[in-house]
Amino acid sequence: MIRVAIIGASGYTGAESIRIILRHSEAELTYLTALPEECGAVAEVFGQFKGRCELQIEPLDFDKLTGLADVALCCLPHKVSMGFVPKLLDAGLKVVDFSADYRIKDIKIYEKFYDVEHTDTANLERAVYGLPECFRKQIKDADLIANPGCYPTGALLAIAPLLKEGLIETDSIIVNSVTGSSGAGKNPSSIFHFPNMNENIFAYGFCVLRHMPEMVQLAGQIAGANVDILFQPHVGPFDRGILSTVYCQPRGKINEKQLAELYDGFYKTEPFVQVCDSAPGVKDVAGTNHCHIFVRSAKGKILVFSAIDNLVKGASGQAIQNMNIIFGLEETIGLL
Amino acid sequence: MIRVAIIGASGYTGAESIRIILRHSEAELTYLTALPEECGAVAEVFGQFKGRCELQIEPLDFDKLTGLADVALCCLPHKVSMGFVPKLLDAGLKVVDFSADYRIKDIKIYEKFYDVEHTDTANLERAVYGLPECFRKQIKDADLIANPGCYPTGALLAIAPLLKEGLIETDSIIVNSVTGSSGAGKNPSSIFHFPNMNENIFAYGFCVLRHMPEMVQLAGQIAGANVDILFQPHVGPFDRGILSTVYCQPRGKINEKQLAELYDGFYKTEPFVQVCDSAPGVKDVAGTNHCHIFVRSAKGKILVFSAIDNLVKGASGQAIQNMNIIFGLEETIGLL
Amino acid sequence: MIRVAIIGASGYTGAESIRIILRHSEAELTYLTALPEECGAVAEVFGQFKGRCELQIEPLDFDKLTGLADVALCCLPHKVSMGFVPKLLDAGLKVVDFSADYRIKDIKIYEKFYDVEHTDTANLERAVYGLPECFRKQIKDADLIANPGCYPTGALLAIAPLLKEGLIETDSIIVNSVTGSSGAGKNPSSIFHFPNMNENIFAYGFCVLRHMPEMVQLAGQIAGANVDILFQPHVGPFDRGILSTVYCQPRGKINEKQLAELYDGFYKTEPFVQVCDSAPGVKDVAGTNHCHIFVRSAKGKILVFSAIDNLVKGASGQAIQNMNIIFGLEETIGLL
Amino acid sequence: MIRVAIIGASGYTGAESIRIILRHSEAELTYLTALPEECGAVAEVFGQFKGRCELQIEPLDFDKLTGLADVALCCLPHKVSMGFVPKLLDAGLKVVDFSADYRIKDIKIYEKFYDVEHTDTANLERAVYGLPECFRKQIKDADLIANPGCYPTGALLAIAPLLKEGLIETDSIIVNSVTGSSGAGKNPSSIFHFPNMNENIFAYGFCVLRHMPEMVQLAGQIAGANVDILFQPHVGPFDRGILSTVYCQPRGKINEKQLAELYDGFYKTEPFVQVCDSAPGVKDVAGTNHCHIFVRSAKGKILVFSAIDNLVKGASGQAIQNMNIIFGLEETIGLL
Repeated sequence: MIRVAIIGASGYTGAESIRIILRHSEAELTYLTALPEECGAVAEVFGQFKGRCELQIEPLDFDKLTGLADVALCCLPHKVSMGFVPKLLDAGLKVVDFSADYRIKDIKIYEKFYDVEHTDTANLERAVYGLPECFRKQIKDADLIANPGCYPTGALLAIAPLLKEGLIETDSIIVNSVTGSSGAGKNPSSIFHFPNMNENIFAYGFCVLRHMPEMVQLAGQIAGANVDILFQPHVGPFDRGILSTVYCQPRGKINEKQLAELYDGFYKTEPFVQVCDSAPGVKDVAGTNHCHIFVRSAKGKILVFSAIDNLVKGASGQAIQNMNIIFGLEETIGLL
Repeated sequence: MIRVAIIGASGYTGAESIRIILRHSEAELTYLTALPEECGAVAEVFGQFKGRCELQIEPLDFDKLTGLADVALCCLPHKVSMGFVPKLLDAGLKVVDFSADYRIKDIKIYEKFYDVEHTDTANLERAVYGLPECFRKQIKDADLIANPGCYPTGALLAIAPLLKEGLIETDSIIVNSVTGSSGAGKNPSSIFHFPNMNENIFAYGFCVLRHMPEMVQLAGQIAGANVDILFQPHVGPFDRGILSTVYCQPRGKINEKQLAELYDGFYKTEPFVQVCDSAPGVKDVAGTNHCHIFVRSAKGKILVFSAIDNLVKGASGQAIQNMNIIFGLEETIGLL
Repeated sequence: MIRVAIIGASGYTGAESIRIILRHSEAELTYLTALPEECGAVAEVFGQFKGRCELQIEPLDFDKLTGLADVALCCLPHKVSMGFVPKLLDAGLKVVDFSADYRIKDIKIYEKFYDVEHTDTANLERAVYGLPECFRKQIKDADLIANPGCYPTGALLAIAPLLKEGLIETDSIIVNSVTGSSGAGKNPSSIFHFPNMNENIFAYGFCVLRHMPEMVQLAGQIAGANVDILFQPHVGPFDRGILSTVYCQPRGKINEKQLAELYDGFYKTEPFVQVCDSAPGVKDVAGTNHCHIFVRSAKGKILVFSAIDNLVKGASGQAIQNMNIIFGLEETIGLL
Repeated sequence: MIRVAIIGASGYTGAESIRIILRHSEAELTYLTALPEECGAVAEVFGQFKGRCELQIEPLDFDKLTGLADVALCCLPHKVSMGFVPKLLDAGLKVVDFSADYRIKDIKIYEKFYDVEHTDTANLERAVYGLPECFRKQIKDADLIANPGCYPTGALLAIAPLLKEGLIETDSIIVNSVTGSSGAGKNPSSIFHFPNMNENIFAYGFCVLRHMPEMVQLAGQIAGANVDILFQPHVGPFDRGILSTVYCQPRGKINEKQLAELYDGFYKTEPFVQVCDSAPGVKDVAGTNHCHIFVRSAKGKILVFSAIDNLVKGASGQAIQNMNIIFGLEETIGLL
């Protein structure tokens, strides 16, 4: 049994990680930590675990952690995470980090978008971006995974086949996404106050579009070329899911049959990506680690639609998929 | 034109009052006030009024108010209201007060449930409870109206005919209500955080069941006898509306035809109460000042269902209905 | 591995059963059937199973079934089920039947409420009501389980401790329930058209209150006495869950501490029933087989709140809990 | 008083027209018609009108209509409408037609997208497109208005200033829209079954993108040049509203300040279009005739966001705005 610690277990991605590990036949929760004011019995912190989990969430004690876990799912916020990850690695754990701190390789871009000095550049260099459909080989041998952001996961899976084959103009990509409200995290705010968010939908993120540089960097890596992406997020009145609608300009002529074949071929051995023959809805992937993709062409452009659950394939599910790969387990264990 | 001031215009009942007065052909908004930190252009405080209202919400200045308004809709919270109402009356205004401060005639009960000394007992005595379907005559001559609570409005309209005619055991009444989330007010909280409230429904209010004594007092007044009521509120994942399901024990035999005739007769001249022949839904009354009622009998008990919009018939609409009565206007103006 | 056939796999309870069995470590799906016009690949019939299940839903062929399965989850509608169950039993399968056909022991009551002649009275007699918390011992040896209705499950779990101990007036019980819309089944109708159901809540079921006799019979069986129940269902704008608010009259004096101890004691070894110290919400049990219960007293009455997922503890989850018991498995396998 | 007939009063746009006219101080409903099977008291057909409207919906009788109304709001479906409009005009009524039948001037394009022969080309020619913000002068003298589609209204208002001034590449426009479910109309369907639509969002309309040619034609007319638009609609889990996110390529350099000035200037005298300084949400315009617009630039592209209520500014409200113009009334009567 792989012993799993969750650092930052009191937030939504912590809860989702707990939910998945509870069903995982080869892994078990051994240590859950959070800030002192957010500690307590799991079943009290999250009512959904009443009768399902008897563990406590405790303040992090590195000495205790060292003997207790083989891997840490580090669910801390951006900027906080890089203060903890080096110590988790020093304690001999593999780490899957949910924050953006190890995703962006160009320190200047990180520091510009996150407005903070990067304090762990040594580990930043060797961190592997945990999108198994594109970087499975590198993930296998890594001990530090930068688990992808929810928006980049949906967007990159939508366009990876086109980027890999060099079929689109790399400066033409527009990603229009709508996320559910669980992306907001658990702290109440005016925007996500039920009477404001219910029956509403709107764009946001004009100033701090932090997922954009991550998308751009990874898309470039997949394409082996410079890529630019215009990304516009929206939030809608539902709990889970991100629907991304991607518009791009093909380089030459490509018809829908060729597009379908390209996507079918690219993803045919992937357990968690399904190429569909109609537009995906977020409800079909809610609560699952799956990504549903549909591709079509219209008016000389290519449109790709992808749907994921932001908390699963966009966070905790993908983290556990990465964990499974690192430990040589069947990749889908606990995730079907 | 009746000149209307709204005291406490920055909350949901303030906004709803603004919305209604903007369409009222015999009344106009002349003065809107709130706490200094909540002031600003109406169209900025509430995006729904962009292009519809050019007024400012300002800190309350009694000197300014005196010459500017004929009536105040006082949308202040419980306990705060009784500090302002005497001054509004002294300034020569009629007052429709939205708080509980002038509803409960028994000071001891008020002080027990609201845990504060009542500081305006003089006005408390002469305040009239503003449920026009039961107290229209008294409302006509009043200059201080205690506008009913949302839950009591729905519950009392449901059982008034039975109480008035003495047809039910007065200690047998159970009121089971479900409110929409706008009842929470505009301040964000964990309970009403969208990811918590969406797809959820639960009971609440075990400790501070403040609407209960109001129901009990008014039901007693309508019945001309002591009445006891067990009231249990719930909150559901929708914006507007209160559905009340009332269970009570008939004194003698009464069949559904007699019940229907009783209700039809009682409400036949009421513009805002409709007796229906099937179960009402809150959606049909959302945004309106109407109350839909359906009555049936089952297993020896009488069941009454009532649906209102908590912000309209349960607050601002009823306040303006009362205002119309006081000023001798057609009661339905601005409300159809 | 227990081989599971699902008869009537194309509806919501069929889908939910598939979802659970896919994660069940000791059971596997071997045969899925439906009406010819509803057959096809599981992943086409329910988009949520894309990439998760390669099975086909086929028209039922008893010859094929005989060698293929050990147990049938029979998800057919009321009245239809009793035409199939005898043949499933003859084919040597254990049967967990989701319909009402084997729940109501009094044929006259069944025939009155379902308006049809009962055609399988022989099996009706030996069918065991599958509420493990009350009838686990009988379930162990049964080969035909009448899986409880969703409303009766929530209501009976709420009051079983009081009934068992004879602590309440047995003619005083009122069950006020609100279900999510998945209870409607998959066929579109005007009531459940999104623009009608969204932002709405209303009572229904005045004529065909079919769950009432089931509740009454089983409550009586648990109490060892005649019981009468007034049951009023409502439907609200959410997918999953039933919240039941039960009002009843204690026989003697009982305080909240005694009530809490009674419930704690009654359910302390039950894996799927959690006695809570605050009001349960349906969201905490959505997608789980758990029932959250809270009990309090007010105004001389006892109030019990219970929350279940109507598709899991109220249908498919409970069916698989029963299956686990019959086959001597750990009762919680596949359900945590 | 202008006497208003509603032809096709039993659908959602009919109901919304009734709702608005009931509050209109210079117009009154005199005749409501529908297919025989959809007739009945307004208050029975739409529960929201109980106590608010005593009219009947009747089968259409042209003789009766002639003396009864000055204007017809023709809420019939595409293809059906052109069979009635000539007779309404012959009966001496002004007509505001909600269908697409008089919007597309190029008969070949109409016949291709609607797959039917156009049977009223004479009136097609003189019909005026009822988008007052762009064609107010022509509307004034028209007796047949082609009321714009909901998607084109939101999209055209978003880009009219840019088109008019020739500031964007006219083949670069992408319109990504999300509509609420009321756009589906009142007939139940699998897609809009609450358990399918709730908590979901998805793209649709790949085959019958009928709003596209309307957008293209009108955008071209506003620009005075050929325009091409890629339009992709989606549907989300809310009742009312269309949020359109428009991406386009500026011809030269233009900064956000210049964009803001352009929009402020273009719409400054328009009562129903508000240029905002942050992203609009559909909830702020729900139930109103207003369009909220926000414009920004990013990565060399211009992004415009517009929010309308699909049933009001996108249908019935705009129709009544057009009616007000034709009859020389204050344009905003009944709509504030």
